[in-house]
Amino acid sequence: MVEGMEVTRAVGFDENERRAVYRAIHERRDVRRGFLPEPIPDELLNRLLEAAHNAPSVGMMQPWRFIVIRDFAVRQTIHEIFIDANQQARDSYEGEQQKNYAGMKLEGILEAPQNLCIVCDSQSSQGHQLGRRTMPETALYSAVCAIQNLWLAARAEGVGVGWVSILEPNRVRRALEIPEHITLVAYLCLGYVEAFAGVPDLERSGWEKRTPLERVLSFDRYDSGWDKQGTAL
Amino acid sequence: MVEGMEVTRAVGFDENERRAVYRAIHERRDVRRGFLPEPIPDELLNRLLEAAHNAPSVGMMQPWRFIVIRDFAVRQTIHEIFIDANQQARDSYEGEQQKNYAGMKLEGILEAPQNLCIVCDSQSSQGHQLGRRTMPETALYSAVCAIQNLWLAARAEGVGVGWVSILEPNRVRRALEIPEHITLVAYLCLGYVEAFAGVPDLERSGWEKRTPLERVLSFDRYDSGWDKQGTAL
Repeated sequence: MVEGMEVTRAVGFDENERRAVYRAIHERRDVRRGFLPEPIPDELLNRLLEAAHNAPSVGMMQPWRFIVIRDFAVRQTIHEIFIDANQQARDSYEGEQQKNYAGMKLEGILEAPQNLCIVCDSQSSQGHQLGRRTMPETALYSAVCAIQNLWLAARAEGVGVGWVSILEPNRVRRALEIPEHITLVAYLCLGYVEAFAGVPDLERSGWEKRTPLERVLSFDRYDSGWDKQGTAL
Repeated sequence: MVEGMEVTRAVGFDENERRAVYRAIHERRDVRRGFLPEPIPDELLNRLLEAAHNAPSVGMMQPWRFIVIRDFAVRQTIHEIFIDANQQARDSYEGEQQKNYAGMKLEGILEAPQNLCIVCDSQSSQGHQLGRRTMPETALYSAVCAIQNLWLAARAEGVGVGWVSILEPNRVRRALEIPEHITLVAYLCLGYVEAFAGVPDLERSGWEKRTPLERVLSFDRYDSGWDKQGTAL
């Protein structure tokens, strides 16, 4: 340290602010049921989209594009695509697991008055390729960071978000006129909800268990034990 | 609505809590400079990793694995991988742009006392394939959601995070003994910092501009105008 120079250290948020950030993280839920028919106001939707748009992006590429879907006919088309994919998914399970799967509500496409499709233009020249020579997939990852920003802001605003991946991407692409060079990243349902579940639906229904953090954590190198644990992880 | 039944509506956070969540989103930075040598306490690191581990994941798959790197020799190896990739990247630019690129600090691998590599096991049987028949890439996206959770929690705690994508993934894989079937998602530097910049480095240096939200927003279908705008977007 140079004499007379003091190294400052940036301070974090105060206790209440920190707690609010963790609250959003811990109380965020993937919502599929209980969407209310009242549309969310434009101003609120805009705040959520601004939150998404303030995500980090490789080279400041901002490759995300947001398609807000309110049109009921468009949502009906997407819902039909879900029905087909979900039927196929259900048929891939057997016995108790199939029964459990069939009993779960996995989307709110028609109930949520607004859907949001996030696509990514990985070919955009914005950012001038900075950070993308070796890991070009970071363009897509930037779009995902935007989604998580929106998801947390939505929780704070009392807006539920559900991510629907049980959709044949090419059919969604056709329904929304998304061109070939654009990647469909995510299809979300969002809206006011009756409640946020205390525990994730998949945990409550017994579909999957929460893994303790220490089982997915290692130091200085990959833990080869992770591969031996298999489903027991 | 059934008579006598009242539909409740989940409330959001109070004004101060909402503001804190948006503050984390808007003040989060990709930090590459000014990391301080003091390691962050285990308890704090643990809170950040718990935030990551509470991310949404497809089918509750939790496919992320966290490798915390404190060993200086390992960080030196990673730093050498960065130096090579960065040299190649710099050589791909010309004139003023090359000068601008060369003048930017793009990583804090050696200065930040802890690095964090996030990898994804897309073959894990956890989650029993729910939601992954049609869009298997959602396993990777889950790991990215975990990163964004950690990034926001870190900002609230006064901890800087920088994502280094200027790395040849196969060399990183060898350095950290990551097997073939595991995907390297991200390599992060994290630690206490002197300051969080008011404006992102790439914006301040003139590398790229912030796009207004309305330029990346459309309704009900893809906006074909997005492709015509090119770099002007």
